[in-house]
Amino acid sequence: MSKQIKGREIHLKSRPQGEPTPGNFELVEVTVPEPAEGQLLVRNLFMSVDPYMRGRMNDVKSYVPPFKLGEALDGGAVGQVVRSRAPGFQEGDFVTSSGGWREYHVADARQYMKVDPNVGSLSAYLGVLGMPGMTAYVGLLDLGKPVAGETVFVSGAAGAVGGLVGQIAKIQGCRVVGSAGSPEKVKHLREDLGFDDAFNYKDGPVADALARTCPEGIDVYFDNVGGEHLEASIGKMKNYGRIVLCGAISQYNATAPTPGPRNLTLAVGKRLTLQGFIVSDQRHQHRRPDFLRDVGGWLREKKVKEVETVVEGLDKAPEAFIGLLRGHNTGKMVVKLASGPA
Amino acid sequence: MSKQIKGREIHLKSRPQGEPTPGNFELVEVTVPEPAEGQLLVRNLFMSVDPYMRGRMNDVKSYVPPFKLGEALDGGAVGQVVRSRAPGFQEGDFVTSSGGWREYHVADARQYMKVDPNVGSLSAYLGVLGMPGMTAYVGLLDLGKPVAGETVFVSGAAGAVGGLVGQIAKIQGCRVVGSAGSPEKVKHLREDLGFDDAFNYKDGPVADALARTCPEGIDVYFDNVGGEHLEASIGKMKNYGRIVLCGAISQYNATAPTPGPRNLTLAVGKRLTLQGFIVSDQRHQHRRPDFLRDVGGWLREKKVKEVETVVEGLDKAPEAFIGLLRGHNTGKMVVKLASGPA
Repeated sequence: MSKQIKGREIHLKSRPQGEPTPGNFELVEVTVPEPAEGQLLVRNLFMSVDPYMRGRMNDVKSYVPPFKLGEALDGGAVGQVVRSRAPGFQEGDFVTSSGGWREYHVADARQYMKVDPNVGSLSAYLGVLGMPGMTAYVGLLDLGKPVAGETVFVSGAAGAVGGLVGQIAKIQGCRVVGSAGSPEKVKHLREDLGFDDAFNYKDGPVADALARTCPEGIDVYFDNVGGEHLEASIGKMKNYGRIVLCGAISQYNATAPTPGPRNLTLAVGKRLTLQGFIVSDQRHQHRRPDFLRDVGGWLREKKVKEVETVVEGLDKAPEAFIGLLRGHNTGKMVVKLASGPA
Repeated sequence: MSKQIKGREIHLKSRPQGEPTPGNFELVEVTVPEPAEGQLLVRNLFMSVDPYMRGRMNDVKSYVPPFKLGEALDGGAVGQVVRSRAPGFQEGDFVTSSGGWREYHVADARQYMKVDPNVGSLSAYLGVLGMPGMTAYVGLLDLGKPVAGETVFVSGAAGAVGGLVGQIAKIQGCRVVGSAGSPEKVKHLREDLGFDDAFNYKDGPVADALARTCPEGIDVYFDNVGGEHLEASIGKMKNYGRIVLCGAISQYNATAPTPGPRNLTLAVGKRLTLQGFIVSDQRHQHRRPDFLRDVGGWLREKKVKEVETVVEGLDKAPEAFIGLLRGHNTGKMVVKLASGPA
């Protein structure tokens, strides 16, 4: 009952300057504490690496506090209860938490949410049924407000958020165009995810690609990328267009301020709305039941595909994260830590 | 009855490259046509010069078509009916129209709107009771959505729109800070218009001035200026802040793309909304009765001041316009064309 468990975790050893390197991370073995009254001991099965984590590696005040040096990182994880000292949870329950980057996690029961392993795969709770999925759902539907027949452009379209944005936009009856960083990803968008058109942004100026793929202009631009993509999109937006500012992965490793869109003034004459958001805000939580119902339903009906790139082993988590920022993933990048409870 | 009237008008002789010069304009004398059935002949008393006119001098597609070379410019004007051939209008009625830049104007009656000379001065219908006033009202209240106690920052605050934005924000119970381009204007904002604080943006970096004048951050930024002001404001916005993109006078004479805000990515973490608008859009017209009632009432109660810079004579209109872009005006810049009907 109280046999001591050893577990490994990833610490932030030093803050990355520009692109993170393996040396910024450290794999540490620790003794997992016993859960106290009201707590759970959970063995993580999958952990998430997400672009937003790069921001937390800087020592900068933002909407989430920075990671601390010499401590375990955290982030989304899905695991299985090994020991419960809280009512409502029992051994074997599947739960999500923000206790990723480690093999075992102990915390108060209110920090866990039970999940149904029959809706999608378990790792889907880190992707289409998790934070990235809710980001796509809320960002596209509540901020982008697409209307059937409109053109929706999404950058980073082969990523966890972008891929679902495109699929939901198709379900809404929109024409959907995506950008990604390789011919394979472009093929994936067109053939697997049903995008109407897609392009490899490394092939030439984004503005040229948008002129070709969105000849009548863009109604909703879902921006995961920033930089050149944002400027080119502003140039191609139709009047009353909506730009959802979700992320700017092109700039996360920047060590100096990056140029802003030189044509932002067009937002006046085109009556554009640009809106940033953070999906974890309280104001969006009332949409969670709708999100789970809709995306869960679309998964079952095969209207939405769950796409992921899986890396195995906690020791590979830093390179999974580094690879994510380089665009090595198609769909959600997850790290598989174990196959079942200890 | 049908004596021929001669009138002068200002033509666009050549398109400005960068800052307009007097040589871009030409004063031309024409024979004023007889009004046809259903038309009015109006003698303009005041005409408006507005920053947006600069955009129309370029041969670029925008929300209003470009001015044509060799033809009279147009823009807001207030005048008096000399001859009416339309029901509902009679000689002596005061009317507004978009037939500015000329002494006499003939058009269909539906292009005129009768105004009440007892609410404010006649020229107020080009300022606080006209397009700039409605711009301030709709932009601040409907897009900026200020709440009592919030901090509102407005750039170009000594201009026609900015001055009213600040005064309306004060009426809403906000703390109001403005920027302008001379010590006299700063004094005017503080002492005449009741701004809580104001600064001369030529005195140093706007970011420093905002750190000093908005130490707790900005909830609503009303942007008339673009450029450095916009970037500095993004840096100082509070979470969930609203940026009303009304204009970018700092860039209207630009001959090459101007740098965009390098920190626009902050809009994600700060959950900012940036929204451009054009007040003449149909979607805003339902607010006209509210606008006239509220601003008319505030004028009568002396809660809003009507501030204008008056230049006399149609021949001075080009230099009034050039001066406007240089910031020579305090409040609304108007050109007085005549004192009464011919």
